[in-house]
Amino acid sequence: MTQPTWRDRALSPESRAQALLAEMTLEEKVAQLGSAWPGNEQLNGNVAPMQDVFARGGVPFEQARENGIGHVTRVFGTAPVSADDGAARIEALQREIVEETRLGIPAIVHEECLTGFTTYGATVYPTALAWAATFDPELVERMAAAIADDMRAVGVHQGLAPVLDVVRDYRWGRVEETLGEDPYLVGALGTAYVKGLERTGIVATLKHFAGYSASRAARNHAPVSIGPRELRDVILPPFEMALREGGARAVMNAYVDLDGVPAAANPELLTGILRDEWGFPGVVVSDYWAVAFLKSMHRVADSVGQAGALALAAGIDVELPDTLCYGKELVELVRSGEVPESLVDRAVARLLRQKAELGLLDPDWVPRARPVDLDSPRNRAIAREVAEKSVVLLANDGTLPLTARRIAVVGPCADDPLAFMGCYSYPNHVLPRYPEYGIGVAAPSLLESLRAELPDAVVTSAAGCPIRVEDRSGFAEAVEVARSADVCVAVVGDRAGLFGEGTSGEGCDAPDLRLPGVQDELLRELLATGTPVVVVVVSGRPYALGDHPAAALVQAFMPGEEGGPALAGVLSGRTNPGGRLPVQVPRVAGAQPSTYLQPPLGGNSEGISNLDPSPLFPFGHGISYTTFEYSELTLSAGEVPTDGAVEISAVVRNSGARTGDEVVQLYVSDVQAQVTRPVRQLAGFARVTLDPGEKTTVTFRLHADRLAFTGLDLRRIVEPGTIEVFVGRSVDDLPCRGAFELTGPVREVGHDRVLTTPVSCRP
Amino acid sequence: MTQPTWRDRALSPESRAQALLAEMTLEEKVAQLGSAWPGNEQLNGNVAPMQDVFARGGVPFEQARENGIGHVTRVFGTAPVSADDGAARIEALQREIVEETRLGIPAIVHEECLTGFTTYGATVYPTALAWAATFDPELVERMAAAIADDMRAVGVHQGLAPVLDVVRDYRWGRVEETLGEDPYLVGALGTAYVKGLERTGIVATLKHFAGYSASRAARNHAPVSIGPRELRDVILPPFEMALREGGARAVMNAYVDLDGVPAAANPELLTGILRDEWGFPGVVVSDYWAVAFLKSMHRVADSVGQAGALALAAGIDVELPDTLCYGKELVELVRSGEVPESLVDRAVARLLRQKAELGLLDPDWVPRARPVDLDSPRNRAIAREVAEKSVVLLANDGTLPLTARRIAVVGPCADDPLAFMGCYSYPNHVLPRYPEYGIGVAAPSLLESLRAELPDAVVTSAAGCPIRVEDRSGFAEAVEVARSADVCVAVVGDRAGLFGEGTSGEGCDAPDLRLPGVQDELLRELLATGTPVVVVVVSGRPYALGDHPAAALVQAFMPGEEGGPALAGVLSGRTNPGGRLPVQVPRVAGAQPSTYLQPPLGGNSEGISNLDPSPLFPFGHGISYTTFEYSELTLSAGEVPTDGAVEISAVVRNSGARTGDEVVQLYVSDVQAQVTRPVRQLAGFARVTLDPGEKTTVTFRLHADRLAFTGLDLRRIVEPGTIEVFVGRSVDDLPCRGAFELTGPVREVGHDRVLTTPVSCRP
Repeated sequence: MTQPTWRDRALSPESRAQALLAEMTLEEKVAQLGSAWPGNEQLNGNVAPMQDVFARGGVPFEQARENGIGHVTRVFGTAPVSADDGAARIEALQREIVEETRLGIPAIVHEECLTGFTTYGATVYPTALAWAATFDPELVERMAAAIADDMRAVGVHQGLAPVLDVVRDYRWGRVEETLGEDPYLVGALGTAYVKGLERTGIVATLKHFAGYSASRAARNHAPVSIGPRELRDVILPPFEMALREGGARAVMNAYVDLDGVPAAANPELLTGILRDEWGFPGVVVSDYWAVAFLKSMHRVADSVGQAGALALAAGIDVELPDTLCYGKELVELVRSGEVPESLVDRAVARLLRQKAELGLLDPDWVPRARPVDLDSPRNRAIAREVAEKSVVLLANDGTLPLTARRIAVVGPCADDPLAFMGCYSYPNHVLPRYPEYGIGVAAPSLLESLRAELPDAVVTSAAGCPIRVEDRSGFAEAVEVARSADVCVAVVGDRAGLFGEGTSGEGCDAPDLRLPGVQDELLRELLATGTPVVVVVVSGRPYALGDHPAAALVQAFMPGEEGGPALAGVLSGRTNPGGRLPVQVPRVAGAQPSTYLQPPLGGNSEGISNLDPSPLFPFGHGISYTTFEYSELTLSAGEVPTDGAVEISAVVRNSGARTGDEVVQLYVSDVQAQVTRPVRQLAGFARVTLDPGEKTTVTFRLHADRLAFTGLDLRRIVEPGTIEVFVGRSVDDLPCRGAFELTGPVREVGHDRVLTTPVSCRP
Repeated sequence: MTQPTWRDRALSPESRAQALLAEMTLEEKVAQLGSAWPGNEQLNGNVAPMQDVFARGGVPFEQARENGIGHVTRVFGTAPVSADDGAARIEALQREIVEETRLGIPAIVHEECLTGFTTYGATVYPTALAWAATFDPELVERMAAAIADDMRAVGVHQGLAPVLDVVRDYRWGRVEETLGEDPYLVGALGTAYVKGLERTGIVATLKHFAGYSASRAARNHAPVSIGPRELRDVILPPFEMALREGGARAVMNAYVDLDGVPAAANPELLTGILRDEWGFPGVVVSDYWAVAFLKSMHRVADSVGQAGALALAAGIDVELPDTLCYGKELVELVRSGEVPESLVDRAVARLLRQKAELGLLDPDWVPRARPVDLDSPRNRAIAREVAEKSVVLLANDGTLPLTARRIAVVGPCADDPLAFMGCYSYPNHVLPRYPEYGIGVAAPSLLESLRAELPDAVVTSAAGCPIRVEDRSGFAEAVEVARSADVCVAVVGDRAGLFGEGTSGEGCDAPDLRLPGVQDELLRELLATGTPVVVVVVSGRPYALGDHPAAALVQAFMPGEEGGPALAGVLSGRTNPGGRLPVQVPRVAGAQPSTYLQPPLGGNSEGISNLDPSPLFPFGHGISYTTFEYSELTLSAGEVPTDGAVEISAVVRNSGARTGDEVVQLYVSDVQAQVTRPVRQLAGFARVTLDPGEKTTVTFRLHADRLAFTGLDLRRIVEPGTIEVFVGRSVDDLPCRGAFELTGPVREVGHDRVLTTPVSCRP
């Protein structure tokens, strides 16, 4: 038998995809657009919002893969499994698909990987909001590559990360999964993560496209009120950047509707912007059950077949996690002529091209795995580095680093390593349905870590209260422990969970930004003891800390399994903290949403509203055990054409007594434009390490394209006019200020616009 | 001297306007687009957000009217003035304008009139949210006519009301000024108010066009995230209805920007929709200083002249309250060719046409006023009726009507008539700058009214705490007073004010929906006494009442100067309450915004978000001292063409022992559509009075146009499919249910669509 054309490695992936497509029956094509979650068939029927839609649940794998299958879902994320067993399982499933189907096309195997490979016993890295606090793209890329390396070893092809949703409301449960509230920071770090995955051979999946983070009142899946300008200027830029500069090969839709149109059924978004404007050639996968939600939740389809037809027409290529709408109903709609077969072909061709690129169509392809330690020393070292670099020192009256002998470590997160672990790491340590497995990774609590870090100190402890339950019975003990110590470290914050199990995480939205449960009251009682209190917030979102006169404030965003030693190192002074806020810390618990990216009337408008949304700690803020001085702002030109670039330099000097990191931040302000523009917006950043007395000149190369915005007529333009530039420590602390004029005509900026602000440092 | 053409009453207003326009110099034209606020020239420089723009302040009247003047601003609203003195002042100003300017065109005199003619000593009617709670358009129209009658008597031409903003977030300070959260209710009652004004010869001004109520986090003037569909389906319908069915002759812009474009500079809104789509021939006036805000706040203009040019081009005809941007800078821009004179002409022609219609261009026009009692018995009777019909009984365990002998009346609003008065009534009773004038109207407090109402009861009282200051020193006394009584009436709520002076009103936005100050704590202490507590909330917005196990709950929305006797009548049982909620009463203080008009995912999505936005009391809710039974839903057809109508009838019977009012409500549900649609939406209502045992058949005539929505391509369409209909007591209590099929093609609905649902009742 001769080898079919589509197996010929010499041909382009596109040619092979087309050749294979031509050989497929309609049933085989449609099967490629579906997925199966072996071992989890009962889940579909058990997901509460879908009970009215799917009495049936999933089908047995043997039936699901009858005509082939596009994806295999989360073999590693279903029940606790070892690396070897999981890899063997994947091998067996692939062998079954290859051997028992007519064409023998292997599946793409996808897994979650937001805080590391999401499987039992694998390294739990810090959550995405902590990566963001590092302001360190190189480190994020290195972490992503390590994650990808492990996944690839056991036969996985695609990871469902990163989350590029730009935070719009801190109350949203998934804030911890994001890279913060600034589109450029999200784009830069998201791109770094994508590069780490993609250069290691794992398909990165950008999610959630688009608008998920702006749901009404931050309620998960709630409708999004948004216009095209905000969508294009705030929500979409990170996706464009991660596609073009990161090379991501997959995109996942958002669950929400935007101004009444569900993203999963929005051709303007999934095809118009993504394909036609940006030229994305990869695959769009659905968020889990999102296609079915078009019928059950959004009510824009009256059958699962119609839901599938809408999603397919909009541009969703593969339905995850199981084939519910892209099944026999869709085949029937094609047969009856209601759905053009060309839509099926378009999606299948994209998927087959990806399979060709991944080698899955090669004649000699066999499923293969190599032994791998999913929590290797290499992983742990990276996890530690990210954790250390992500800790944000918000305030310090000199109590830190700790020098006291008697240290009280209190609060519900003091002796709980799970407080360090993000929502999407739950299969790594505990699976709700498998409690007997316990924590799958060695993760010391902050109490344990501090005892190890400070062997000469007398460290006492009390929880004081639970994280979320309103139980004050432990207050007295905690107060007594604090009172008897020289310093009290109060560790408060979140427990990540899914769908209301936790205080942060998917479905764990907050009514306001008060610390969960009675932790706020506990803090008040501790502060009233007179013992200096170092408040350590370990959380997935910022909480209002406006009225706590703490001796020092430390913010860690779920720093992962190495969070304990990392935080202990900051408290002891072994590590000099250099993390910065990717989200603001609000002053008050209510009056949300409020992020920094606002035109003048979005901020504090004295005499207009009695609400003052100004934060307690602004975007970009973070201090250190040393100090930095800024000077000598220079601009390479005072006038810059609307298609030109300008170099903006500032000198930063470590003016303190120890080596430390500073995140040098460039902000721009378009002082007058045809539409309202943010008062200030981050345009570049550089994390630099400086020894005492050392200085460096940081130079940003700012292209005029980076000042583009969506104008009145919805074209993306650069307008002539004055641009103010600021360099400094945070959006509210900018010692270096200058301005230049953009000159020349209003210029439309196309798909090839400059997306980044390169930065260089010289002594 | 022959009479100029434009004075010829035989010609059409349009011809006269054009004739006059042809005679005017550019300076005279531009002057018609401006306004002057005599006696208040210093204010412009003192409004905090404008200090950087207007060092100059206003100019003396003599200078302002040099070339004529379009409007005169708030002669009655500046300093306390009697009706006679104010009328004389207007006469004098008009005489000066007529005699001292070349053409002698009188000004349009405008005043505020939201809660009645906004001047010292005039009747303070209930605030708009209370009118909404009456669900009684006839009564609202009667009230508006009485207001207009008084204004007309003293020489006023235009009233800056009603507010047609649809509530989107209860935290907004101006919720009290609105007609609630449902577009149809707002439209129906707003139209009634407009009819009352217009048929009495006062120009009604629809405000704020458009989107103001959807500002971010409900902060006054903050940016609005909104798409075109939500704007057209939720925000705009009341305006269209009040223009077409009410005949309003003026519109005022909203301060906010929508998706980056300030409403004052939005030609699509002010010209495209308002003029081209709806055919509005009247005048658009700016909200106070809104044109200047284009420079100072929105930063879309770099000079006051450019701000003026943008506003003029967008469609703002007259700048209020003073000429700041439509002045000599605008003249210069026209002279230099930057602004086409045709834009000036367009606006001036509209204003002159209105002046012609008002008789101001007539040859025999003279300013003239007649003596008028601004707080007449007629006015007070109407104010009482609106107040009585607006009280909403939310819950009652039988404690109401009051039968107890010893009654404690406690809470900060118990003995404070100002708690009954809306924000826009402040000149009626106190002006911040004229405290010596005191309350200008006789307004008994609830305590006084209850003592008068129940002469045999022993009524004791204590404030307990202030409205907004956190002072618990009065708790003990209040608790003691409550404990010693048979029943405790706790009167809590708001004090209306401007820009942070109050807890409700313009600029008085709330961070969350907890009762202001420590009133919530006071309630808890009162409830803990064991004495049954009747909670009376007198407020400008709904507050979270989710955890107060009160014996009865009464909601009054700032019921005006007759609020005391009206509430006392409800408590005593003299009046049987029949008001209904135009806004929901939330369960919890956070998790806002949340109004009833939501697609499925906007509501309680179990398993998706742990936040449950379902209210404590739903939209439309309100009980009575009698009961009503619903039965016999009938539909005139099971199939209705997409351009047809259906009659929906239900039988309502008073099944209790006393005469009472029921608000029969019709809701519709479009169960599947091409975009997401609300779970249920109010489509009609009728307030009926029934004696014990009496029944009536209520018939709604629902045209298919009333089911129109903005489709995927932004056309307004009616789609075939199933429509569920519900008749009942509130959006969550709908005993009568049915459905019909819309049949035929998708139909586009033009500017002539049917806007109302006529309703009829027969025994």
